[in-house]
Amino acid sequence: LNPLLEAQPTTIFTVMSALARQHEAINLGQGFPDTEGPHDMVQKAADALLDGQNQYAPLTGLPELRQAVAESNARFQGLNINPDSEVIVTSGATEALAASLMALLEPGDEVVLIEPLYDTYLPIIRQLGAEPRLVRLQQPDWTLPQDALAKAFSARTKAMVLNSPMNPTGKVFTRDELTFIASLLRHYNAYAVCDEVYEHLTFGAPHISLMTLPDMRERCIRIGSAGKSFSLTGWKVGYITAPAPLAGVIAKAHQNLVFATAPNLQRAVAFGLRKDTTYFATLAADMAHKRDILSEGLRSVGLEVLPCHGSYFVMADIAPLAAGKDDVAFAHQLTIEAGVATIPASAFYDSSNGTPPRHLLRFAFCKQEHILREAIARIAAWA
Amino acid sequence: LNPLLEAQPTTIFTVMSALARQHEAINLGQGFPDTEGPHDMVQKAADALLDGQNQYAPLTGLPELRQAVAESNARFQGLNINPDSEVIVTSGATEALAASLMALLEPGDEVVLIEPLYDTYLPIIRQLGAEPRLVRLQQPDWTLPQDALAKAFSARTKAMVLNSPMNPTGKVFTRDELTFIASLLRHYNAYAVCDEVYEHLTFGAPHISLMTLPDMRERCIRIGSAGKSFSLTGWKVGYITAPAPLAGVIAKAHQNLVFATAPNLQRAVAFGLRKDTTYFATLAADMAHKRDILSEGLRSVGLEVLPCHGSYFVMADIAPLAAGKDDVAFAHQLTIEAGVATIPASAFYDSSNGTPPRHLLRFAFCKQEHILREAIARIAAWA
Ligand SMILES: CSCCC(=O)C(=O)O
Ligand SMILES: CSCCC(=O)C(=O)O
Repeated sequence: LNPLLEAQPTTIFTVMSALARQHEAINLGQGFPDTEGPHDMVQKAADALLDGQNQYAPLTGLPELRQAVAESNARFQGLNINPDSEVIVTSGATEALAASLMALLEPGDEVVLIEPLYDTYLPIIRQLGAEPRLVRLQQPDWTLPQDALAKAFSARTKAMVLNSPMNPTGKVFTRDELTFIASLLRHYNAYAVCDEVYEHLTFGAPHISLMTLPDMRERCIRIGSAGKSFSLTGWKVGYITAPAPLAGVIAKAHQNLVFATAPNLQRAVAFGLRKDTTYFATLAADMAHKRDILSEGLRSVGLEVLPCHGSYFVMADIAPLAAGKDDVAFAHQLTIEAGVATIPASAFYDSSNGTPPRHLLRFAFCKQEHILREAIARIAAWA
Repeated sequence: LNPLLEAQPTTIFTVMSALARQHEAINLGQGFPDTEGPHDMVQKAADALLDGQNQYAPLTGLPELRQAVAESNARFQGLNINPDSEVIVTSGATEALAASLMALLEPGDEVVLIEPLYDTYLPIIRQLGAEPRLVRLQQPDWTLPQDALAKAFSARTKAMVLNSPMNPTGKVFTRDELTFIASLLRHYNAYAVCDEVYEHLTFGAPHISLMTLPDMRERCIRIGSAGKSFSLTGWKVGYITAPAPLAGVIAKAHQNLVFATAPNLQRAVAFGLRKDTTYFATLAADMAHKRDILSEGLRSVGLEVLPCHGSYFVMADIAPLAAGKDDVAFAHQLTIEAGVATIPASAFYDSSNGTPPRHLLRFAFCKQEHILREAIARIAAWA
């Protein structure tokens, strides 16, 4: 069997969710809301099932969803996107990422990535025969080390993967950082795969898409997620915005990987993307409030909380409570003994790039307030 | 960009469907029914959206669907499958195929395939750095040349892809043929990826899964499709049955490609798989009737129809009408002038394996009777 896949561990999200169920723990591990998305969208998806359009959608997505994605690019990022040639609907952002990397990479190419990172980036890159070049953010402020980033680029760099707002750190890259990244992409004639699934979940810091920077329109592949933007993670509807020559090749990768996505879900997402600005502002404000509740709670039990300006996640330093245990052991202990599941941050680091930090846990705060408060109460009682 | 993907042509299904729309032609090209699947399943999918389970499904699928897939394996093929460790739900059979090949293949591996073949098999295999070894069925009876098949195997053969009931030929492999294939797999210690999406669509000839033959239980990956079994191709729900050690690795490929599939659609498919045997028998009988109507019609306009015992498709020899045109030119002419779209058979052959036949068109008969009759009337009027 394929040795890279055989060696890939079971995803930490599945491991910790299973452990949470087993011990009836509150699950602040895997990133999904514990409430439903907008009822009108769900109703739309249900109605759309019943009007006789359940055969294959077009390969790149229904025209009405591609149009809505293009409009959303214009509304939130000022981008002028052609819905017919520059948008591809995918079965979730994971598929969007896989298809984008397949379109870009050849064996021997190098890809620059920033650690800590989401756990499917590296396996796909390696399976395509390409080589990751990892650059680590510095704690506690998740500073981007510009020298190290510049050194990671080379004549063999085909692309960079940039995740902003960033999972698992909650970092939102600033215009200065993006400008520096853009200068490297320009200099090395490289592409960027921009995982922007948390584009509507920022707290104070504005989300700036790398694609909006000078010369970046032709170099960037933007990935969005209906699951994250509408709190419907189970639907697995994602969308790619890319310049036409790139989009054409990504569509072929998509053809080989999945081909098309359920039409009723696409129609409901098209409806959702047209919601007024209040919807998106409220989503972000609610999530900011949840971040505050969880962060204050964690501080109240003695943990240091790292800065977080976006996403579903915040990292905390476990040293005061872990009694010398590493993050994996402590995450297990906290699940089993305190009844609160999290993700050990070392799962987001690659062993090829030196020892990962062993003192951080990732907490998901995309949960109901009373659940967050109960989680804190459990940790306090246990501590 | 990736040169293999860049060189991949736009899928013939998209090309011919677009041409059909442009010329208001009857679309007997892309294989999808022009009626809806069972109303009770669609209603189930709509109801399931509305009861608050729209976050991530488990990576390998909802337990109730995995259970239903295992039961279906027992009921129709007498296979004893563990729903927890031997079933994986995917976003359609295309994803199932990609994940299975990723799990099996390493660069340098060889894969045996039978021509004519579905158009995503080869691109995925080549992108993984593996080498296809193609064996061509002989017309007009779609005979499997056993000598050529045996010669295609070697010490480097990792797997064979076997599609039965077969698209685009309508061939259903016999027990004798499967026994011969099994002997080769055993001898060369190879796996089989069994694309059985048309398992419930056979006409007279029984569908025998290769997995049921001696020693094949541990070597076969079976792929099924809710789209094909329930006439709901847009849903893109597929399922893989594989021995546990293989299934574990396929699940990791699935994790990197898509991760999970919409829970409401999974629940409706679980319901569908439990339908009584009458449902499946009626589906096949209806389809056999459609095959007959189309085949008789094609004969009535002077075309020779090749044997077809399963799937949505039948091939016809265009020589009497094509006036020397090749299949691609004639398919375009038939779409534009007669108003009937089909797929030129050469699209299912690889140029690396010699000149493809140029005298065959594939007709999809998964359409309403009056549509099939109208298509024949149009061809007759044009001819
Ligand atoms: C697809 S499961 C993981 C969900 C997620 O984005 C996360 O928890 O990081
Ligand atoms: C996924 S589009 C192609 C549908 C199909 O199976 C066919 O027409 O062969």
